[in-house]
Amino acid sequence: MALFVNRPRILDTTLRDGEQTPGVSLKPEDKLSIATLLSDIGVDVIEVGSAAASDGERESLRLISDTGLKAEICTFVRGVKLDIDYAADYGADSVHLVIPVSDLHIEKKLRKDREYVTKMAWDSVEYAKDRGLIVELSGEDASRADPEYLLNLYAGGVERGADRLCFCDTVGVLTPERAAELLPQYCIAPLSIHCHNDLGMGLATTLAGLKAGATCAHVTVNGLGERAGNTPLEDLVMSLEVLYGLDTGINTEEIYHLSTLVSRLTRVPLPTNKSIVGEMAFTHESGIHAHGILRDSATYEPISPELVGRKRRILLGKHSGSASVEAALSEMGYIIEPRQLQEIVARVKKLGDDGKRVTDSDLHAIAEAVLDISCTPVIRMKQYTTVSGNSVMPTASVTLFVNGDEITQASTGAGPVDAVIMALRKAVQDVGDITLEEYHVDAIYGGTDALVDVTVTLRKDGELITSRGARTDIVMASVEAMISGMNRLLRKRDEDRG
Amino acid sequence: MALFVNRPRILDTTLRDGEQTPGVSLKPEDKLSIATLLSDIGVDVIEVGSAAASDGERESLRLISDTGLKAEICTFVRGVKLDIDYAADYGADSVHLVIPVSDLHIEKKLRKDREYVTKMAWDSVEYAKDRGLIVELSGEDASRADPEYLLNLYAGGVERGADRLCFCDTVGVLTPERAAELLPQYCIAPLSIHCHNDLGMGLATTLAGLKAGATCAHVTVNGLGERAGNTPLEDLVMSLEVLYGLDTGINTEEIYHLSTLVSRLTRVPLPTNKSIVGEMAFTHESGIHAHGILRDSATYEPISPELVGRKRRILLGKHSGSASVEAALSEMGYIIEPRQLQEIVARVKKLGDDGKRVTDSDLHAIAEAVLDISCTPVIRMKQYTTVSGNSVMPTASVTLFVNGDEITQASTGAGPVDAVIMALRKAVQDVGDITLEEYHVDAIYGGTDALVDVTVTLRKDGELITSRGARTDIVMASVEAMISGMNRLLRKRDEDRG
Repeated sequence: MALFVNRPRILDTTLRDGEQTPGVSLKPEDKLSIATLLSDIGVDVIEVGSAAASDGERESLRLISDTGLKAEICTFVRGVKLDIDYAADYGADSVHLVIPVSDLHIEKKLRKDREYVTKMAWDSVEYAKDRGLIVELSGEDASRADPEYLLNLYAGGVERGADRLCFCDTVGVLTPERAAELLPQYCIAPLSIHCHNDLGMGLATTLAGLKAGATCAHVTVNGLGERAGNTPLEDLVMSLEVLYGLDTGINTEEIYHLSTLVSRLTRVPLPTNKSIVGEMAFTHESGIHAHGILRDSATYEPISPELVGRKRRILLGKHSGSASVEAALSEMGYIIEPRQLQEIVARVKKLGDDGKRVTDSDLHAIAEAVLDISCTPVIRMKQYTTVSGNSVMPTASVTLFVNGDEITQASTGAGPVDAVIMALRKAVQDVGDITLEEYHVDAIYGGTDALVDVTVTLRKDGELITSRGARTDIVMASVEAMISGMNRLLRKRDEDRG
Repeated sequence: MALFVNRPRILDTTLRDGEQTPGVSLKPEDKLSIATLLSDIGVDVIEVGSAAASDGERESLRLISDTGLKAEICTFVRGVKLDIDYAADYGADSVHLVIPVSDLHIEKKLRKDREYVTKMAWDSVEYAKDRGLIVELSGEDASRADPEYLLNLYAGGVERGADRLCFCDTVGVLTPERAAELLPQYCIAPLSIHCHNDLGMGLATTLAGLKAGATCAHVTVNGLGERAGNTPLEDLVMSLEVLYGLDTGINTEEIYHLSTLVSRLTRVPLPTNKSIVGEMAFTHESGIHAHGILRDSATYEPISPELVGRKRRILLGKHSGSASVEAALSEMGYIIEPRQLQEIVARVKKLGDDGKRVTDSDLHAIAEAVLDISCTPVIRMKQYTTVSGNSVMPTASVTLFVNGDEITQASTGAGPVDAVIMALRKAVQDVGDITLEEYHVDAIYGGTDALVDVTVTLRKDGELITSRGARTDIVMASVEAMISGMNRLLRKRDEDRG
């Protein structure tokens, strides 16, 4: 299906439109980390912010321009000299010169008329060219503009030296059909398509725009951006590569790395079921599906997770069939007979029916009960106590029976949770070198007595285990998760008593 | 643009495909709540699960069937008699009879051949019709199947009584172009289109399928589902209504209510920038944009938030322009001069540049500093102390100066945070009736010494205020957020000292 003639260029605006996500604010050094990775994976143009917005924005532009990345460094400007001066003075290669072009924007937002805006656009192109900048003349709210007016504004801009044009679907109302109709007439210079996702059509309309003659797509990592965000970089790149067979020139194996970096620095969590980069995108639970995956991953995966720098995961739950439970058990080293497997599957489903997630520790406990393997827990807790306050150093004590010996340890920490976990780890250090790889708490909603769900990932000698605690008390939930996980890692099987 | 001839039917599979999201497990009573709302807002068919999967699934089907909802109640079955018997015995109106049709699925997953599968499909249709069920014969992985084989399988199914057909794009690789090419030949009976979002194309391909002759779309609330999920109900409905001018018959004003119900019961948080239903979908920060919104909301909103049962929010941050800061200040009752506004905007931007979110309390503090309004805080904290443990009742004491009087209170609670908040509220109850409307903690990633971000919403006499605390100690962060918010609600202005 040869729908696209050339490799489309990619302008990433994570650091401008993406950063306009309410509540997101990136420091200059964070912006540099993201820009560097964007340039390294092969993005053509990076829009790093709006230099007129604040001192910090200008500092970011200067820092990134001075680094000498391979990508073109662009910045957002309005049709005013001050903005263009900032762009030039702080080292941008190019400007994304955004001019409102719909009558709604011209009359309601600017309170001007079409003639005023045309002059502003053309004067700004000339001024930006005088200042030595590459100019992308962009029609804001172009999808609701009068097409004839817009064409005239674009044409005059090109005459005055604009290097590229951009069609902004500012509120995400452009359809693929309308993009196919409208865009060809504007291809009088290299045209970019900039779409928003308000109605979920950002990606589809961007693809339609590229088919209609646009040569560059504006995107953001993880689809960040105001309101419902922009066309996601990862979706556009993988659609072009996988669905339309194009080589985008992007190093796709770095996509997940890029997504997680942006998520961490912007503090916007990755949606669990986000295409390509969400936690669940390559995770399988359903019995039927995991069964297929185990036989041939292509049955339920359109692309291999490694292609975007990820790994496949199989989780257990109430939909889990025998095949996935057996695979998980065999990975844990249990040898089981068909009759036992059936019983284990039934208990896993029961736990799922009760609305619970099934962690590694849960599966171990079920397997050992069914196989009649008796495990004396290595660790039993006698007590823990924490004290904290504004003028009290957070302090905790823990008393454990470790292999029958009573051990008490105490520790301070950054807070009561940190203190009790430190004390716990001290108390068990003689029986095993256990490290806490990850500590995660689900977001808490509701009141201060809501259930707190803590998941820990522990490692011992290369073995990883996840374990959960759920209590209304965050300290107790954390202790419960730790002890259950540590017991699994340290377990020793007694003689079969069966 | 009259692209669609009839009002498409909507089959919602949140309770089947949506529930197959790894880690999601709904109890029968939760499923009933969701099914009831789905039926009430106008969904045509509800697929409530797979009766063969577990006892809980069968219980859900029975419960929902017995309720007598307006919507048709459907259940997922494989091409086996046991599944069909469960569907009929537990009260389903119809079955979504899913038959693998690609050679990949037939050979790798089932380890059978095409003839075997055709016979299984046809026998199952006959058996299900014998059992009195409405039958939707569904081709799994249809987008990768041999079209001729699939057409033959469908045609034989219709001959044997299948009422409807379904084309499943099981791994999300169908493009709109391919849907337009493939689907018309299968319209030998009412055809459904079932799309997945692995490459972000679920919605666009579903729309293309409806244009190509399909009469029913399969969707899930919030786009839940395995991997990257299914076509989202809210996106499909609002695209059809807003972009293509169709009346879907869905009560759109209940969409946000439905989304939040599903999010709460499945424990899958709504992505912040999810179209239509995400926290940010109708939230504005950027200076330029909020400015436009204040003059005419259509400038930066494709639909009014009320249309889907929501409200608009304006947040402040480093992109905030004077217009939105002024609007927020005027809502808080401050009267300011242009010069003062400029200074306040500069300080808001500075806070944003430092990577901080700007809460109501922050804006109050800035405004009062700039306006030289001196506020003696009503509450000052002298000390707080908490003790908790596995055999220690979580207990906290707090000593405050309230209007200069020293007050000490103590309380127990569900955990140390709950205890200290209860003690705090006791200590201030004589000066004001303050209720804690919402307590929220962002998800914690990393280690036990990670920064914990607590936001509280407090109410006094109808006035709502949000306030934040960020510390490595969750108890201290909670106390900080509470005291800062309580001071704002109780503040009294001293005589101007300027």
